[in-house]
Amino acid sequence: MREFELIRKFFQHEQADLLLEEKAQASVVLGIGDDCALLQIPTSKQLAISVDTLVADVHFPADAKPDDIAERALRTNLSDLAAMGAEPLWFTLALTLPKNSEYLSEEWLRGFSRGLFRTANQYEIVLVGGDTTSGPFSITIQAMGAVDSQYALRRDGASVGDFICVTNYLGDGAAALAVIQNGLQLDETHEHYLRERFYRPTPRLAEVNLLRSIASSALDISDGLVADLNHICEASDVGAVIDVENLPLSPALLALNDVHQARTWVLSGGDDYELCFTVPPEKMPELAMLIAQEKINATVVGEIISGSGVRCELDGETYELDSLGYQHF
Amino acid sequence: MREFELIRKFFQHEQADLLLEEKAQASVVLGIGDDCALLQIPTSKQLAISVDTLVADVHFPADAKPDDIAERALRTNLSDLAAMGAEPLWFTLALTLPKNSEYLSEEWLRGFSRGLFRTANQYEIVLVGGDTTSGPFSITIQAMGAVDSQYALRRDGASVGDFICVTNYLGDGAAALAVIQNGLQLDETHEHYLRERFYRPTPRLAEVNLLRSIASSALDISDGLVADLNHICEASDVGAVIDVENLPLSPALLALNDVHQARTWVLSGGDDYELCFTVPPEKMPELAMLIAQEKINATVVGEIISGSGVRCELDGETYELDSLGYQHF
Repeated sequence: MREFELIRKFFQHEQADLLLEEKAQASVVLGIGDDCALLQIPTSKQLAISVDTLVADVHFPADAKPDDIAERALRTNLSDLAAMGAEPLWFTLALTLPKNSEYLSEEWLRGFSRGLFRTANQYEIVLVGGDTTSGPFSITIQAMGAVDSQYALRRDGASVGDFICVTNYLGDGAAALAVIQNGLQLDETHEHYLRERFYRPTPRLAEVNLLRSIASSALDISDGLVADLNHICEASDVGAVIDVENLPLSPALLALNDVHQARTWVLSGGDDYELCFTVPPEKMPELAMLIAQEKINATVVGEIISGSGVRCELDGETYELDSLGYQHF
Repeated sequence: MREFELIRKFFQHEQADLLLEEKAQASVVLGIGDDCALLQIPTSKQLAISVDTLVADVHFPADAKPDDIAERALRTNLSDLAAMGAEPLWFTLALTLPKNSEYLSEEWLRGFSRGLFRTANQYEIVLVGGDTTSGPFSITIQAMGAVDSQYALRRDGASVGDFICVTNYLGDGAAALAVIQNGLQLDETHEHYLRERFYRPTPRLAEVNLLRSIASSALDISDGLVADLNHICEASDVGAVIDVENLPLSPALLALNDVHQARTWVLSGGDDYELCFTVPPEKMPELAMLIAQEKINATVVGEIISGSGVRCELDGETYELDSLGYQHF
């Protein structure tokens, strides 16, 4: 199959959701098929961009279902937009596939395209360009969104005394990887839940809309809570203490009956794509109200302190970590 | 080396050119180091974006000098901005390097960073974000620029009777690849010239500023003149005839003493990153003036006709091609 045929067949005319068409008409002056896409940023907004590469057998199993691979790739990028408080607008896709591989089959590409646009339609983000090349299987997505930079959720806004919160459950990403790599067996329901969490992490875009006026800083957790919270500490010039007792564990992780393993996955496992955010004490009533109204699922897991670095505590004692978070090299 | 150390050391504080600092201050609200970069598009301009992946041993030799690899990667992306008539603003870099490889050495990364920022400073484009991952060596760059979409150089503006022009010389890219892969020997001067053309193609940004009010369509030639001109034909719903006699050949290609080989490289070789553009007859005096004043180096190589597809002619006869342009898969 030639490159242009592949693009036309699987990527150019696939996105036809009505809502998206309106969005595309408003913001995409020129889409796929020229040297560049031409895009119109909404008036008085800034552009938020994030880029992530997923390498086969590093970030996902190469033999996973193509729908799952595509969904995971786009959702992890959308998570970065959420963590910045940005509204998704457009994305580009650079797809590298080996020559004469099964990935170039009609069936595989159809599945990849289906998963990609299912996610794109759900989160209202428009594919505006890309590149297809031959080489070892990898996917690079650049997600672009609009944000009023005054209300952007940056990493450098945490202050001493702020509470540290996280959305939903943590540790599921690393537990899912153990299931997928056959290192962990649980009952069918829990394994299914974890696989879904791995391939279809939920970008916390809805939560961010509620947190924008409450949180002093935020990021998404991709390398483990300690490593990522440390980025907030460095950017904000503060320290943090995590109360290990309070880490939110899913029923699947509780079913493991190994709370130390579960906490290790939370603290240094990565791949969760939940939000970690800080909230000043005076904003805590607002957050508590949102939690009580079930508008957001969040847990207080610690406090910002003076100094630097992240310390974990359990029953008043320092809790030692087995690992320091996902190491990229 | 950890990912964050690598980014900090080789990519975060390297770009310090005075001119660029001003540009960065005006347009980069938040650069490297958060979940997203936050960028301010100049008022009343549109965003032009283009993404390209370069895979080691597909798009460049893996053992080439790191400076050369970086320069080629960024320059080929800048060429897409030029082809759209856009002013370079920002780029992101997704760099995938194998674990424990020589590419993670201080020397290699220092060289790559040097080449990258030499080019970035020359063309005034600011690195605003990226991703580093472990995996087979590849580079994905997304270049972003500003354009007034009214004056964008699109592919769909060619009309019957327009003249087809190209900048500088063609065929050098494919000839250079033959030299680099040791399939072609020339004297030292010509080989040096061709290597430079391969690793440091010139994005035709200066030319585009002159052509914006003259050209009816434009693109950059990456897959060979015939394949790329055919994109203009399809987008504009026209045909084209190329006068093979008039194809501009560099002294290096003429020194080959094999004009048929040289023309094959021009027509179907690729990797030239020169502009192909169309000019309505009434604008030809303006173009002729620019050429006479040596403000632009361009050659008329054919004409837009009714119908579809690209036909090559030599001495009034159809000139048959040996190949149809670079095949990606």
